Amino acid sequence: MSELYQLGVAEAAEGIRGGALSAVELMEALLARCAALEDSLKVWVTLDGDAALAAARARDRELATEGARGALHGVPVGIKDIYYTRGVLTTCGSPIFAEFVPDYDATGVALLKRAGAIIMGKTVTTEFACGDPAPTVSPWNAAHTPGGSSSGSAVGAAVGMFPASLGSQTGGSIVRPSAYNGVVGLKPTFGRVSRQGVYPVAESLDTMGPITRGVADAALMLDALAGHDISDTDSSRQPVADYSRAATSSAKPPRIGMVTQFFMEQCDDETREHTENVVELLRKAGAVVSEVSLPTNFDEVLLAQRTLMAVEGAQVHERNFALRPDDYSPNVRGVVEQGLATPALTYLKAKRLQRDFRRAAHAALHGYDTLLMPSTPAPAPPSRETTGDPKFQSPWTFGGFPEITLPSGLSASGMPLGIQLVAAHFDEVGLLAAAAWCERAMSIDMGMPPIC
Amino acid sequence: MSELYQLGVAEAAEGIRGGALSAVELMEALLARCAALEDSLKVWVTLDGDAALAAARARDRELATEGARGALHGVPVGIKDIYYTRGVLTTCGSPIFAEFVPDYDATGVALLKRAGAIIMGKTVTTEFACGDPAPTVSPWNAAHTPGGSSSGSAVGAAVGMFPASLGSQTGGSIVRPSAYNGVVGLKPTFGRVSRQGVYPVAESLDTMGPITRGVADAALMLDALAGHDISDTDSSRQPVADYSRAATSSAKPPRIGMVTQFFMEQCDDETREHTENVVELLRKAGAVVSEVSLPTNFDEVLLAQRTLMAVEGAQVHERNFALRPDDYSPNVRGVVEQGLATPALTYLKAKRLQRDFRRAAHAALHGYDTLLMPSTPAPAPPSRETTGDPKFQSPWTFGGFPEITLPSGLSASGMPLGIQLVAAHFDEVGLLAAAAWCERAMSIDMGMPPIC
Repeated sequence: MSELYQLGVAEAAEGIRGGALSAVELMEALLARCAALEDSLKVWVTLDGDAALAAARARDRELATEGARGALHGVPVGIKDIYYTRGVLTTCGSPIFAEFVPDYDATGVALLKRAGAIIMGKTVTTEFACGDPAPTVSPWNAAHTPGGSSSGSAVGAAVGMFPASLGSQTGGSIVRPSAYNGVVGLKPTFGRVSRQGVYPVAESLDTMGPITRGVADAALMLDALAGHDISDTDSSRQPVADYSRAATSSAKPPRIGMVTQFFMEQCDDETREHTENVVELLRKAGAVVSEVSLPTNFDEVLLAQRTLMAVEGAQVHERNFALRPDDYSPNVRGVVEQGLATPALTYLKAKRLQRDFRRAAHAALHGYDTLLMPSTPAPAPPSRETTGDPKFQSPWTFGGFPEITLPSGLSASGMPLGIQLVAAHFDEVGLLAAAAWCERAMSIDMGMPPIC
Repeated sequence: MSELYQLGVAEAAEGIRGGALSAVELMEALLARCAALEDSLKVWVTLDGDAALAAARARDRELATEGARGALHGVPVGIKDIYYTRGVLTTCGSPIFAEFVPDYDATGVALLKRAGAIIMGKTVTTEFACGDPAPTVSPWNAAHTPGGSSSGSAVGAAVGMFPASLGSQTGGSIVRPSAYNGVVGLKPTFGRVSRQGVYPVAESLDTMGPITRGVADAALMLDALAGHDISDTDSSRQPVADYSRAATSSAKPPRIGMVTQFFMEQCDDETREHTENVVELLRKAGAVVSEVSLPTNFDEVLLAQRTLMAVEGAQVHERNFALRPDDYSPNVRGVVEQGLATPALTYLKAKRLQRDFRRAAHAALHGYDTLLMPSTPAPAPPSRETTGDPKFQSPWTFGGFPEITLPSGLSASGMPLGIQLVAAHFDEVGLLAAAAWCERAMSIDMGMPPIC
């Protein structure tokens, strides 16, 4: 490990706790990294270096006097700019919120602070976490999209501006930008992580989760984030587990159900061949891989996910959209307008399909630790006019299933490729154990992207 | 107790279990009662006396050989004609189902049989359990509505055709006809009793419950009916309790929250004065009664309940309504047409208000065992063109709260009046204990209605 900015969450936390490293040293290294790269990559909406350094100094003092707050003591994190942060601008990527400074922290932010993490600042989100491209630049190739909507959180993690960040997913907004940028993105089960204090996209889909460069780091973040929150009506009372232990214990080779249906049909040839090679590698390493199929029409599922997002999104934006229609970019506008025009029966049918798909995917998972498929139909497309296609992630968000993307290699054009694992509701332990096993078996070193 | 047909559920079951009475004797008495009254009251869609007698003989044999099946061994019950009954016509009050014979029993029906009850037949429901008046006649005054939609189940219990029946409530369809006919109607908490095999009205409102002539009998029925059913997605896993014990143990005087807001404002003078007299009587008997108010606009609640019923009802009927529009009567037609025309956002707002109202009513219940109000704004109106106004029951159905109506006297015109008690979700124990206490304190003997 040559540079401090390359330290992961666990390494950084251990270094600080053990005295090998101070929170201030680490923060200085990361701020230097940000200073060097921000002009070209546009990761940040708000980055206050002085405040971050002051917080790092405070953490170092606390460690010396009271000891570590928790497993993330001194670890700097980036926060997607739809999470409310007390006293810190929260724009939601919209001119309507250009000057909005919340007076409280989102539960996710508060939990990270409680575990000792330091909030460096707020990362770029697409407008209201929808599909209008944000200014963030892909460090792999500036002509390609970095993905969205957690664009800054994914790119910042990829280039070592921070070891971890928070994203959110309504369709594919954690997993897709993570896959496009060669990092690990974890979308937990719907209801596993509180959404209190996060500006909503769609109430029956929105899920909060971390972006990191490794599976064990994602698990450490989930340890801090998971749990019931009485302020979030959809927050689950399912007991939490020791996710970090699940990701670091030596697990048996996983039983993998490979979903060829839809996912291997609708990806490009290179992605298909790559995924087949990955599966072959995993099989040789000892994984048991079988094909599974679902009695599901995935195109209907995607339409239903879009219906929920549109209707529930329109509910969120109805008032502002009526007052300030010109402050909405085309993609969000399209979401809201579709939602306003949707009949109740169409919405009810989508909700019913959501229940049916949950059952079907759980049935498909029977006998498997995880389902596997490519994370995206293709690497990040060579366009800044799109954030890419969420169709490989949206079904799992629609069904509420936990999923994770792992970097699995590079395309011929030098863009990251990823595989996606999916597990049963609230089986983040199984998901992370399988993901950690696959990560070790693949033993991919993505290295740092070219533009950094 | 002069006549067998006047026996309640508990008395009949004890008589049969103890050998003082045979199931056949009781059934013969009830069938004679039906034969005498059916032409004038029109309680039944399907009554097969031979089958009922054969079942009674079988129960008598079982008792002698294997012992009682359960607490309802040998007790005859009437079943609203929207519950599926294996091999028995189930019309839902609609020409579309005029010849429909299900091949399985609704869970509620199966549970009653398992407890030993005998299904006498199927009682008249309004068309699809909505508001178009059914042919059933009020035994209190043939010019007045018997109420609906559980019209036959309420009238049959009132005149002693059976000691208990099953009804269902989406707005006020158990409590209102029960109150209009001077009997006890219990609508449990949403999710407490399975709806599997009952033709739906509206999925987020429909609740199944018993109609009897006394509180302890309603509790005995609930003992048989309550519990989780994996086949009903909205069925709750909340543990059940010994409801019969709650209704028969000597309870402390209840702490009653009286809701004057809306309910005492929108009832007629006679009902208001009557309710005040009842409260005074309860207070003298030891109940602690205070006024409570909710931060609720009940008119908005009623509109939202209607929205849910219309949209979810339209989902149920969409296909049949498109194929056979002329087979729908005006009230159901209005429900379906409203539902088809409702935008998704209107539906979502109604669902949100449902959550808000749940919270508000639970907050109002804090410190009280039960809320009290008149069951209906007035006694059964003198018209056969309506089933009466559900506005005093619909809010509690909308919120999912358990409620019960107790007969509390007669109006000057000789029509029954009732008081309604409401408790917290899944506090049927508290509700039944309070209801039994009030029943004892009021000690009303409604006697048999004039037309019988």
